[in-house]
Amino acid sequence: MNHDRRFGLARQVALPGPLRLDGGALLSPVEIAYETYGTLAPDGGNAVLICHALTGDQHVASPHPRTGKPGWWTRLVGPGKPIDPARDFVICSNVLGSCMGSSGPALTNPATGRPYAMGFPVITIRDMVRAQGLLLDHLGVVTLKAVVGGSMGGMQALSWAATFPHRVRACVVIASTARHSAQNIAFHEVGRQSIMADPKWRGGDYYADQDPPAAGLAVARMAAHITYLSEAGLTEKFGRKLQARDAKGFGFDADFQVESYLRHQGLSFVDRFDANSYLYITRALDYFDLAEEHGGLLANAFRAGQARFCLVSFDTDWLYPTLESRHIVQALNAAGRPVSFVELSSPYGHDAFLLEAPEMNRVIHGFLEGGA
Amino acid sequence: MNHDRRFGLARQVALPGPLRLDGGALLSPVEIAYETYGTLAPDGGNAVLICHALTGDQHVASPHPRTGKPGWWTRLVGPGKPIDPARDFVICSNVLGSCMGSSGPALTNPATGRPYAMGFPVITIRDMVRAQGLLLDHLGVVTLKAVVGGSMGGMQALSWAATFPHRVRACVVIASTARHSAQNIAFHEVGRQSIMADPKWRGGDYYADQDPPAAGLAVARMAAHITYLSEAGLTEKFGRKLQARDAKGFGFDADFQVESYLRHQGLSFVDRFDANSYLYITRALDYFDLAEEHGGLLANAFRAGQARFCLVSFDTDWLYPTLESRHIVQALNAAGRPVSFVELSSPYGHDAFLLEAPEMNRVIHGFLEGGA
Repeated sequence: MNHDRRFGLARQVALPGPLRLDGGALLSPVEIAYETYGTLAPDGGNAVLICHALTGDQHVASPHPRTGKPGWWTRLVGPGKPIDPARDFVICSNVLGSCMGSSGPALTNPATGRPYAMGFPVITIRDMVRAQGLLLDHLGVVTLKAVVGGSMGGMQALSWAATFPHRVRACVVIASTARHSAQNIAFHEVGRQSIMADPKWRGGDYYADQDPPAAGLAVARMAAHITYLSEAGLTEKFGRKLQARDAKGFGFDADFQVESYLRHQGLSFVDRFDANSYLYITRALDYFDLAEEHGGLLANAFRAGQARFCLVSFDTDWLYPTLESRHIVQALNAAGRPVSFVELSSPYGHDAFLLEAPEMNRVIHGFLEGGA
Repeated sequence: MNHDRRFGLARQVALPGPLRLDGGALLSPVEIAYETYGTLAPDGGNAVLICHALTGDQHVASPHPRTGKPGWWTRLVGPGKPIDPARDFVICSNVLGSCMGSSGPALTNPATGRPYAMGFPVITIRDMVRAQGLLLDHLGVVTLKAVVGGSMGGMQALSWAATFPHRVRACVVIASTARHSAQNIAFHEVGRQSIMADPKWRGGDYYADQDPPAAGLAVARMAAHITYLSEAGLTEKFGRKLQARDAKGFGFDADFQVESYLRHQGLSFVDRFDANSYLYITRALDYFDLAEEHGGLLANAFRAGQARFCLVSFDTDWLYPTLESRHIVQALNAAGRPVSFVELSSPYGHDAFLLEAPEMNRVIHGFLEGGA
């Protein structure tokens, strides 16, 4: 994977907008940080948009510039992979509201000269998609060979097919849902309350002194992280195994390996993510209900356009369980859209879509090839 | 239920001890707050011990003196119920480590004259049971007609049968487990980190100024509360229903009813529970592994004594799912103990054991009658 860097090209653009958001606000400029890999074909027919998940970024197939870690989906995107820059023009942009260079609470509000903080408008998944639409316009991409995403990325892919039906030829939706359930909302609300209860949050105005609400954000991440893993996976990986010491400590240090692991997940997250962005993006996720945007009937979201669909779920994913994918498939059937759907078996819960998943690769490869 | 008060009698006793705890410390005195209902029969054969859950109390069948709310298990314990003070001598004590009058972090450490706070020794479920044993000695109760509990109360019931096998004739274990899973531990660790990250926690020394880590405790409760409810139950009760206003607020107030409900659960909890007690009791739960205490084989916990067992699980309980009860039943079978087991259907998840459950009552009534 070390040669990924050679075909990744970090970019940022400030588009004038204004972008009218679902909440009514006008956003201008619309700053978008993105990466592209490969070259747009003369006929423009090889563009593939990859959409990232809640805490993801644009570095899908090249190392993260700060951490040096490989791109987050090199298992799917790269030389010899189902999405291959040698053939495809791959685009991945940081979503609106995030903190990797796109417009969000940490960026400067041109009206004040200070960070937006909580003055940033509340956004939706559809707003993220519209911003991506502006980016594609900027890049000269008219239609997409495919839009591909897992988790929140899958929601964007669905929203792409619904919002720009004539710009999407294929849509790949992995481990995702067409709407956030009460339990999904509940977990996110715990995270938001944890951040906002941290005295260092200060109503979101914490950028000046580099002293963010790290403790609250770490707890939010810990709670969310549990939902990304399966119960069986946690048992297999940690069970009740103790830390290096061979007996219980009868104190409140991390005794069990799973405690230490979770604490590490929380602490390492605060180094790479902005607490306010976490508030905004979880809000966008909780607001997501594709049927509601289309008169209450999900099938209505898919009646226009010619896109083919591919859905993948994982049997141990309890965040967005297979049933949610089935609902989408039923709506696609009702709308008369071609759809292939497979539930894959994995011990890793929701996180499976980011891990080694040869079957997932075969399914996506076959689906994308089938449309060529 | 208004006449419950007439047969409830709030009591507190300071037993000299010392009680040797699993962690090695000696606790003295052992203060125990408890309630009794009914009268001990001359032959001593009608004593029933009720064990409460994580945040429960001794007021099982009479109104809580502070909140005025009915006892927490009047559906099971009371006139005409499966456990009836007209027939049974019912005992319920606040567990060690809790904050309703029994020895715990909020009580005075006689060695310092100040609250124990984090100087209270870390305790186990078995330590709670041993303290209850001292209380029964004090009350002149030699053997129990039955020990009955749900959730953490079920763990105590199991621990009673294992620790004092010759004092227990029947053991009723509802919605419980013989050991905490990695996922169980993970959720508790989120709660503990939330409390300890609250600057008001101050290493546990917050009693003097009545300014406890309420925000951290509220978030801990919110996270835990999600695990008490089923996904289907949350969907049925709240779904994506909005608050009174008829549209999304595009802000961070509680938009969805489930958010408002969770916030209320968190805020109301801090009025009735001590944050340090939450740390200690969740630690005791996470340490619980009955097999480990008996050479790694759960059946060994049940070889002595003559107790009959009754296990009840609920099909939507994902905190302590039916599989955990099956493991216990298998161990009881291996130990040659009589056991009846039923999985009941309920939409309410783990909380079902505290709610109206006529089938549960029938099962427990039949089981207790069967042994008479």
